[in-house]
Formats: sequence, C-alpha cells, structure tokens
Amino acid sequence: MPSLTIVKIGGNIIDEEANLFAFLHNFAAIPGYKILVHGGGKMATRIAEALHIPQQMQDGRRITDEATLKVVTMVYAGYVNKNIVAQLQSFGCNALGLSGADANVIKSHKRVSTQMGVDYGFVGDIDHINSPWIQAMLQQGTCLVVSPITHDGKGLLLNTNADTIAQEIAKSMCALYEVQLIYCFEKQGVLSNAADNNSVISTIQRSSYEQLKKDKIVTDGMLPKLDNAFAALAAGVNVVSIGAADDLPLLLQQKAGTSIIHE
Amino acid sequence: MPSLTIVKIGGNIIDEEANLFAFLHNFAAIPGYKILVHGGGKMATRIAEALHIPQQMQDGRRITDEATLKVVTMVYAGYVNKNIVAQLQSFGCNALGLSGADANVIKSHKRVSTQMGVDYGFVGDIDHINSPWIQAMLQQGTCLVVSPITHDGKGLLLNTNADTIAQEIAKSMCALYEVQLIYCFEKQGVLSNAADNNSVISTIQRSSYEQLKKDKIVTDGMLPKLDNAFAALAAGVNVVSIGAADDLPLLLQQKAGTSIIHE
Repeated sequence: MPSLTIVKIGGNIIDEEANLFAFLHNFAAIPGYKILVHGGGKMATRIAEALHIPQQMQDGRRITDEATLKVVTMVYAGYVNKNIVAQLQSFGCNALGLSGADANVIKSHKRVSTQMGVDYGFVGDIDHINSPWIQAMLQQGTCLVVSPITHDGKGLLLNTNADTIAQEIAKSMCALYEVQLIYCFEKQGVLSNAADNNSVISTIQRSSYEQLKKDKIVTDGMLPKLDNAFAALAAGVNVVSIGAADDLPLLLQQKAGTSIIHE
Repeated sequence: MPSLTIVKIGGNIIDEEANLFAFLHNFAAIPGYKILVHGGGKMATRIAEALHIPQQMQDGRRITDEATLKVVTMVYAGYVNKNIVAQLQSFGCNALGLSGADANVIKSHKRVSTQMGVDYGFVGDIDHINSPWIQAMLQQGTCLVVSPITHDGKGLLLNTNADTIAQEIAKSMCALYEVQLIYCFEKQGVLSNAADNNSVISTIQRSSYEQLKKDKIVTDGMLPKLDNAFAALAAGVNVVSIGAADDLPLLLQQKAGTSIIHE
C-alpha cells in the first residue's frame, strides 16, 4: 500500500508567523501523499474581542454561539486556511484548502447538550469522512489542507476539534494507505517528567501505556490524546507520533518525539 | 461540446440572506457543469469598521492595504464562500469552494501603481487560470464556487475583481465547453431608460452596441461591463447574459435580462 502522512498543527504554531513559515517549508518537503489539518490559534479570540462578541468557556472549551461561529468560519476556513495554502504553493506544494462542507468531505451533527446540561453551541461531532474523494484528490497530486469547520449537510457549518478531524481522516484512510498520523504541539513529546522537556518517552505501546498511567507519569491533558492515538492504531493506523512542530522531519522518521505503536 | 454555465453574483445578493437562499436554490437546479463566482458584499466593510481599519476609496474602488487584505480574505474566502458551499450541499449540489490559491486555480500579480500614481495595494490582476484542473473537477461532478481572492504563487494573497474572474474563467474554458456566462446584478438587465426597470434591451450585438453608445443610451458603469462581455465573446464564449439574480432560471434560457451575442 502507498503511504500517507497526516499532520495536525495547533494554534501555537499558527500564531507565530516565522514558526509557521519554517514548519510549512518542512511540510512541503514531505514526499508522497500528505494531508495537513490545522487548528485556529488566538486570532479568532482577538477578532471576537474586537467585535465585542463575549467568549464563553466551559471546562477550558469555547462555547460556539452564532456570532462566534461566524468568526471561526472567517478565521479558520478563510484567513488561516488560505494563507497556509498560498505559502505551500510558494514552496511548490500543490495545496487545496478545505472546510468539511467542500465536496462534502466531513459531515457532522450538532453536538447535543451534555447530561450536565452544557450546550457547546455550534460544535460538530463527526459522522462521515468522504474518503473516496480524498483518495481521488491525493492521486491527482493535490495536498489537502483541512480547516476545523465541518457541516451537517443541511446548510449548517459547525466548529469541530482539529485533533479529532485528523484522527477521523486517518482512520478512514487506513484501508487504502499505510497511514502515519503526526500531532505537532508545543512540547517535545510525551514527557516522563512534565518539568523537563528533555524527558521524552520515545515509544509507547499499549502495555507500557497501562504502566505509565498506573505510575501516574502520564496524566491530565495527555490522557485523551493517547487514548485517541490508541483508538487510531486499533482502527488500522500504522503509527501515531506526537512532538514539536520544528522536529517535523525527525518525527516523520520516528527519530524525535513520542511514537505510539500497536503492540 | 458539453455546455458549461458560469454565474457571477455580486454583493447585493450576498447581503440579503433570503435572496441568497432563493438564488442558490435556483443555481443548484442548473443541469450540467456549472461554476459560481461570488463577490464580497458589505460584510467586509462592516468588519473592517468594527476592527477600526480605515477604508480608503479611490474612484469608487477600495484600496486594499495589508489589514484590509486580512479582512477580505476572512470574509470572502471564509465566511461567504463556506456558507454558500454549505447551502449548495444542502440542496444536493456537490460544491467545492475555492480561492485562487487552492490547487493554483487563479494566479495573478500585484497591480502596479497607475500612471497617476494610484496604488490600489494588495489587488491582483489575473495571469493564468488552471483550466485543466477546473475541467477535471467538473467531470468529477463537482460544482466550483470561486471567491475573489487570488495568489501570486510567491505566498501572497490578492484581492481580485469578481467580474474579471468570471470573465477570465469563461474565456479559459471555452475551448473545452459551450460557455454561457451570466452576470447577476441589481437591475433587470441593460436598460434603454435608466429610470425604467422595464425597459430591458433583450439582445445586444456588436452592431447594435455601437448604435447604443452613439445614441448615449448605454453609458457610465455599463460600458466596461459590455466591453468585457464582447471581449469574452471574441475569445469564444457563446453568450453573455446580464440580469437580476431572481431571474436566474429565465436568464439561463435567455428569456429575461439582456443577452449579449456575437454578430
């Protein structure tokens, strides 16, 4: 099977123009089929503040009301997505930017209120990835750049978690490709000592993950990331890597960051 | 040759949600290959004002400084484009939204200052349309929705006139398709009496156009529109229609508005 690299970058890289430029330069050089999934960054918050749209948070998550949905659609699917695409084109990478509505590539439904009565607003949970279309575009030589805005097929756009989009695309493509899924974030990888950025755990397997949890070495925000990584592996993704954006060339070869692999 | 319908809608339709909905419903029903090119609307001006970005005009045209370029990229390629795409998807039309940077579909260069020393800023004049890619997407069953943002191939996005984009796409596709180009605007068509919306001139040919100009029946803002229409016809476009957005089904059959045809 041909190989497919799916990279997710978060807001912290997008917010720093020089970092983003360096990252995209490295991303453009990845050989073969590739997809970039991007988050939003702080620009949406800045624009919302400037437009006097109050931002409500619940457990560290943004509540997407109607006015905020307009802002994230503008910023994520417009400003961020098109600037990434234009930059990749300048590096000779034939990028095509997408929201989930484009070519019906990601269909979702509006999240129902939680049992605790929390309504996240216009947030989408993914139902379907249009993998045949993604395959056709990759084979055409296009690199897809996916923004975290999906649609419900009834005319509604929905704000959707970029980590989840990357994972769902990876899962949907692994019947057709050997998929490597790379999450780039602000740390060097999964750390054995949160205070020491040099304490990267190079490999985590299911058995060692259970031990890391038991020993409370991996906790808090890293748990859902790793649970998702194992879910992707269980669905057939070959390897999930987690590391720093500026290590992308090494992450590709599993020579940096943390590689999460199936037993 | 198969036929291709290219429709351009302006800001006045985009600004009215109910009108846009009705228009998109009609557009989705057009059989065969089709492309929608949209302008921006007043939202960009409203957002720029809210963000305290002063808007400079020169001869009725917006000067696109760096801050304004960010706003039009967000609004045109983000908010407007993705909402149109999501709406078309809800009508069963498999739309794919684009800026000119996506798949390198429209390459342009930054306009040089005029002889009068006017610098329009980040405004693009079109150099190339990627017609083979457009053809491949149409044959795949996708309807393209093009926003008026192009790129220079060196990483720069540029604000570009939507009328011109529609015309250049039409010209580039007419070796492959029988192209009908439809401009939807706020009037019923080209009027013989500007004060009377019922005085639509149903057909204009090159010879009758010369007479209309001589008799000063067609003046001002309509002249560049008609000059462009004749340029498109000279390049091989079959017919150019100008009329009201809510007449789209009739414009398709040349039963409303003004049809501009080659002698």
